[in-house]
Amino acid sequence: MPRYKLTLEYNGTGLAGWQRQPAAPSVQQYFEEAIEKFCGEQVRLHVAGRTDAGVHAWGQVAHVDLARDFRPVNVMGGLNFHLRPARIAVVAAEKVDENFHARFSAKKRYYCYRIINRRAPLILDEDRAWFVPVPLNVEKMREAAAYLIGEHDFTSLRDSECQAKSPIKTLDEVRIEQCGELIELHVSARSFLHHMVRNITGTLKFVGEGKWEPEEIPKILAAKERKAAGPTAPPGGLYFVRVEY
Amino acid sequence: MPRYKLTLEYNGTGLAGWQRQPAAPSVQQYFEEAIEKFCGEQVRLHVAGRTDAGVHAWGQVAHVDLARDFRPVNVMGGLNFHLRPARIAVVAAEKVDENFHARFSAKKRYYCYRIINRRAPLILDEDRAWFVPVPLNVEKMREAAAYLIGEHDFTSLRDSECQAKSPIKTLDEVRIEQCGELIELHVSARSFLHHMVRNITGTLKFVGEGKWEPEEIPKILAAKERKAAGPTAPPGGLYFVRVEY
Repeated sequence: MPRYKLTLEYNGTGLAGWQRQPAAPSVQQYFEEAIEKFCGEQVRLHVAGRTDAGVHAWGQVAHVDLARDFRPVNVMGGLNFHLRPARIAVVAAEKVDENFHARFSAKKRYYCYRIINRRAPLILDEDRAWFVPVPLNVEKMREAAAYLIGEHDFTSLRDSECQAKSPIKTLDEVRIEQCGELIELHVSARSFLHHMVRNITGTLKFVGEGKWEPEEIPKILAAKERKAAGPTAPPGGLYFVRVEY
Repeated sequence: MPRYKLTLEYNGTGLAGWQRQPAAPSVQQYFEEAIEKFCGEQVRLHVAGRTDAGVHAWGQVAHVDLARDFRPVNVMGGLNFHLRPARIAVVAAEKVDENFHARFSAKKRYYCYRIINRRAPLILDEDRAWFVPVPLNVEKMREAAAYLIGEHDFTSLRDSECQAKSPIKTLDEVRIEQCGELIELHVSARSFLHHMVRNITGTLKFVGEGKWEPEEIPKILAAKERKAAGPTAPPGGLYFVRVEY
């Protein structure tokens, strides 16, 4: 039974997120329906990172086992045909061996959070970036970000409903790039807690605004409670970029 | 009577283009209505480049004379308030002297045309780039573009209904950049003919696909008829980037 690794792009606006929900259509649901239309099989997709409603993906990764031996390019074309008009597409497909698991084989996950820092409301970046009209001090944000790198207890930066057993994670990178009014946070780690990237972003935004000094970050981590940190940044600025296996 | 220079961003999708149309809402109409709501004046906006339906702008420039002497930041804020929910915003406003004219003072106009060259349909770039699934040879496109630089009779590359008196224009730059699946054409000139950037793009795409060799370009220009050149690229890939005064 061949296993296929699928790289997915989606526009999270209007989607309920990755996971099947009773109320609204999710990426998983659109996808599993497209697979059934394509080859008649009812299967379950496994995914590298379950994204929330409104979060986008440039390079989400999923895997699925299909009974028939299709050429990967045909799986991609067939699924893309049946995914329409949902704003989801397979951008790459390949056959992998049965030891590959989209979630458990992942060595590193990369996210990008986009902020537009200007007075004027967002137009071309509406639902695709966080509109922050207060000027942000990116240098201070970088100083603050440095305190987050490495292994920490991230209880203060995970959603209060996060179901991960341990709040200990190792953050490899929080690189902040600025190009005019665009500020991008590039965040990578083996794995993340629920809302972790958005909570990091909301906390660094408070530092950028001057509400907090970078030196507050160790205290925020040490507090080990969600309310010690900044707000959860909105989902539309977050992109699941890629996975390293 | 103070004159204001306004820099505008808009998402062209669903807009009838710049100019007032009886059938559909245009950028000009939304803007002039917002001005009337803001200060009660019925005025006419002058613009650097009239864009077609579906074409976007990051830095379109317009000017308007208002009876009252507002602070530019208040003009910007007031117009942005009244422009909602149209996908148009003033991103910068300044007072200029009465010799400034958005259209006639322009020394150089910059456009960008975005192509996504991949097999998978566009998702996050839907209506924001041209989806070209056939692999393009960017080196050949650059060779072809070199023939377009400088002063030429661009009859073959202007819309058959273009109303400009002369088809002679001087193209300063057609720079083609590639980053993964994204191909960007950066085109600048003092002024352009109707559909000129989109017709250049459609013609260079034919070269990139191997339909034509770069050496055909001088013949296409010499033919002086629209049908000698390639197709008009779709509007959603085109961005009016900025104006130099």
